[in-house]
Amino acid sequence: MLFFTQCFGAVLDLIHLRFQHYKAKRVFSAAGQLVCVVNPTHSLKYAPSRCAAAQESSEQGIPPPCHHHEAVHDPQLVPCTCPLFSCPWEGHLEVVVSHLRQTHRINILQGAEIVFLATDMHLPAPTDWIIMHSCLGHQFLLVLRKQEKYEGHPQFFATMMLIGTPTQADNFTYRLELNRNQRRLKWEATPRSILECVDSVISDGDCLVLNTSLAQLFSDNGSLAIGIAITTSKVHSSEAEM
Amino acid sequence: MLFFTQCFGAVLDLIHLRFQHYKAKRVFSAAGQLVCVVNPTHSLKYAPSRCAAAQESSEQGIPPPCHHHEAVHDPQLVPCTCPLFSCPWEGHLEVVVSHLRQTHRINILQGAEIVFLATDMHLPAPTDWIIMHSCLGHQFLLVLRKQEKYEGHPQFFATMMLIGTPTQADNFTYRLELNRNQRRLKWEATPRSILECVDSVISDGDCLVLNTSLAQLFSDNGSLAIGIAITTSKVHSSEAEM
Repeated sequence: MLFFTQCFGAVLDLIHLRFQHYKAKRVFSAAGQLVCVVNPTHSLKYAPSRCAAAQESSEQGIPPPCHHHEAVHDPQLVPCTCPLFSCPWEGHLEVVVSHLRQTHRINILQGAEIVFLATDMHLPAPTDWIIMHSCLGHQFLLVLRKQEKYEGHPQFFATMMLIGTPTQADNFTYRLELNRNQRRLKWEATPRSILECVDSVISDGDCLVLNTSLAQLFSDNGSLAIGIAITTSKVHSSEAEM
Repeated sequence: MLFFTQCFGAVLDLIHLRFQHYKAKRVFSAAGQLVCVVNPTHSLKYAPSRCAAAQESSEQGIPPPCHHHEAVHDPQLVPCTCPLFSCPWEGHLEVVVSHLRQTHRINILQGAEIVFLATDMHLPAPTDWIIMHSCLGHQFLLVLRKQEKYEGHPQFFATMMLIGTPTQADNFTYRLELNRNQRRLKWEATPRSILECVDSVISDGDCLVLNTSLAQLFSDNGSLAIGIAITTSKVHSSEAEM
């Protein structure tokens, strides 16, 4: 009887380990199968943009119009969060996705793990590659930006924003992964909420940052493939404990 | 009988999976237990250094003295590879480690996974944090450098060099990992051979690059912990297949 109990225990252990092994493999597997080709857009809002205006006004002691609570008259409304254009639109958070799709023609992709293939990396800064990513019941905005922080030295910045509140964003972890030429670079972080400025996340450098030479090493024929995976923060914290 | 065979099979499967799970955990576990505190050294060789001289002379059409095959009269001898000082020493590759330890007082650490804890990150550029790492029967040199590529904007560059030939270096993969404040950054690459210039690897940016704000996010009380793991390239290629 004891033998049968031990066998049963071993089988349970086996099932548990098989599940854990599968999970570990899934979390760290090379980027998923779904490849999305993303064409660049020369950003049109680098004149006095919403966020530049926000920074200027905050320097002058005027509350920045960038932050949700202060930006709009009705606290239920949020301004358009498209990083490409200065857009006067404002609406409820629930309709930001449809506004971005319909007005700004930003594509949306489904799946926990996708590959974001940014083309024409050679184009001069400022250039943006943008896509929405639907996953785990939420929508995320992935922004890759080529920008010259130091004149003559363009860099690439990649970040992911949740189209939701900061509290909702805290429940997720996103991972961006580059893998080519015997080099691998992974960035994992909690997504920011779309209610914060994409521009300020990028200017703070709190995102994946690539200089031109690294971007070239990771590029293939002028295109950069970024593997994207989103998990709930529970997985992230269990990894941290490993 | 069939039942016992199945039980035995299940137990074997269990052992195999437990081993695989352990392996996966080891490869991706948070940085190891051995923490080495590394104090900064203000680099003294930023005047006309070996590599700067090499670059100048190569611009003038003179073969660079930096590369092993051309640098020394006896092809069996290599110049001193210490990134900190311009040193006239040259000797056989086998005695580079003892030269670095004895003359330049660079510490050596044992273990496949170690934590490199660089102190006083606030010190002005140029500053280097250097250690040797003994692992898998070879010695590696880890260099963290704070340098101003763009005036007024110091950046941190971290790379690992094998104290061996380029052919030997191709057999290994090193990983540098930063993990703090809900952010994780991993860089994996093949180490360069110490016969190449550390300076040129860093000036090419083919290494882990951190801007000041990211370095601050990953630092704790002015110290930056970098988890280091070295594996043979077989592990790297099997991961890539995953």
